[in-house]
Amino acid sequence: MSILVVGSVALDSVRTPMGEAKDALGGSASYFAAAARHFNRVVVVAVVGEDFPVAHMKMLEGLGVDLTSLERAKGATFRWAGEYEQDLNTRRTLDTQLNVFADFKPRLRPEHGEIEFVFLANIHPELQSGVLDQVKQPRYVVLDTMNYWIQGSRKALETTLARVDAVLLNDEEARLLSGHSNIYHAAKAVLDMGPSLVVVKKGEHGAVLIARDFVFVVPAFPLESVSDPTGAGDAFAGGFVGHLSTCADPRDQNALRAAAAHGVVCASFAVESFSLNRLATATRPEIDRRLVALRDLVRF
Amino acid sequence: MSILVVGSVALDSVRTPMGEAKDALGGSASYFAAAARHFNRVVVVAVVGEDFPVAHMKMLEGLGVDLTSLERAKGATFRWAGEYEQDLNTRRTLDTQLNVFADFKPRLRPEHGEIEFVFLANIHPELQSGVLDQVKQPRYVVLDTMNYWIQGSRKALETTLARVDAVLLNDEEARLLSGHSNIYHAAKAVLDMGPSLVVVKKGEHGAVLIARDFVFVVPAFPLESVSDPTGAGDAFAGGFVGHLSTCADPRDQNALRAAAAHGVVCASFAVESFSLNRLATATRPEIDRRLVALRDLVRF
Repeated sequence: MSILVVGSVALDSVRTPMGEAKDALGGSASYFAAAARHFNRVVVVAVVGEDFPVAHMKMLEGLGVDLTSLERAKGATFRWAGEYEQDLNTRRTLDTQLNVFADFKPRLRPEHGEIEFVFLANIHPELQSGVLDQVKQPRYVVLDTMNYWIQGSRKALETTLARVDAVLLNDEEARLLSGHSNIYHAAKAVLDMGPSLVVVKKGEHGAVLIARDFVFVVPAFPLESVSDPTGAGDAFAGGFVGHLSTCADPRDQNALRAAAAHGVVCASFAVESFSLNRLATATRPEIDRRLVALRDLVRF
Repeated sequence: MSILVVGSVALDSVRTPMGEAKDALGGSASYFAAAARHFNRVVVVAVVGEDFPVAHMKMLEGLGVDLTSLERAKGATFRWAGEYEQDLNTRRTLDTQLNVFADFKPRLRPEHGEIEFVFLANIHPELQSGVLDQVKQPRYVVLDTMNYWIQGSRKALETTLARVDAVLLNDEEARLLSGHSNIYHAAKAVLDMGPSLVVVKKGEHGAVLIARDFVFVVPAFPLESVSDPTGAGDAFAGGFVGHLSTCADPRDQNALRAAAAHGVVCASFAVESFSLNRLATATRPEIDRRLVALRDLVRF
């Protein structure tokens, strides 16, 4: 069982109260892949420029990530620069250079169209749909998005939403997409748009799964030191889709609950360092130990 | 086993996006008592003025709350007015009239000094200590406080903190009291001041218990409609201390975890309406049903 992700592979420059990183490996597909590779083979569909360091390619390949659908285009790699305030909850984008990403048209190698588990990271909803067009028999599709698409490409987003199983949103995105301020009302309105699951990402407070027949709350894994929240949502998605890809029925409530628990554990490794530094060194036994600790954390 | 609470019994005027209440029954001791009375007899130590409606006294007594240590003084009852913004997380105090509360010196009837479970609601730490002086053999004491005392009466607060078992704080208060921004570091610094437990109140995100040997996270009970967050923290404390008062060992980790779960359930009734309207009508079977639902909410 393989997993397909379409998203960005980027060079990030990030400043947080804990330090900074310059032109470090980032992007939604990178974080997702570094988490999901613990569960199954991950195929990355993305584009990088001529300047993308070979060392980063080798690092990802060293993790077992399949980069044969990663396009290398003429021009510079997508670059993002941002900084976080003292409490790490408020993020400010300082610079975005789309570069080769501006003309990106995801093209899957034919054999990758057979993959059944798909993560559509936060890119233009038309590109997300374009990827789905190339997937023959999707079994479980998760979509991420953001305010920019909700406001600027609503119709395309609604078309794509109708084709996916789960959507990742934060509080603000859920409200903007639905028009409801109560998060449960908001989620129900989003369920009416097609997905059978809404995953509300709450950052340091964890995540909430809302389906028609159940609600599940999972806290963030407690950490004494958070260096850089970048990529937490994508690492969550990696653990989430990764675990689901190992389940007999990815729509089963218990599978979805456990998947979210794997998600917050993967996210906890992502935020412990800049870039993929900690996430890339995390081992499956470490993930399993945090899962045990997470279960104890909520026990009563 | 009885429970003692010292705090305010007030007349609140509150405006939220869901409506408003004028001169409604409020105050930390009222919310606490309305929650804790489900578990054991509650004795309220507080003061009201000559204008305090007899109907409110009768309502509290009707819930089984012992008001024989509630002083009726010359002057007007403590009044608080505030409003909440759209997201219900931001509260603005519009008016505070201490009135009879300004000269309040808590005096327990001698038999109330035998009570072993004590909640020191958010009042001046010297008054909190004054109450403890009158309690002969406290078994479990919980203290609430706020930025105002942390900044303005720090020394008195530290003296009182050294005498209690648990302290309730929100993120901001924990940071202010400890000087640490990471909540786990902050809690550990507070544990060094005396208490064996720090309860971090996170509003709509629930609560975190931090002790030397365990961490417990409990989400808020999911509600489709929140009318007024006022009193949520005190109702939480009521469920928390209430449940502990029924436990063989109130310092036992499992007792404390279950107590926090009872706390968030009681808080959920408090916020469903203005004043004590919903909390006062909640029944023990309703509480138990929400506990079952809460357990299912976090199950994975």
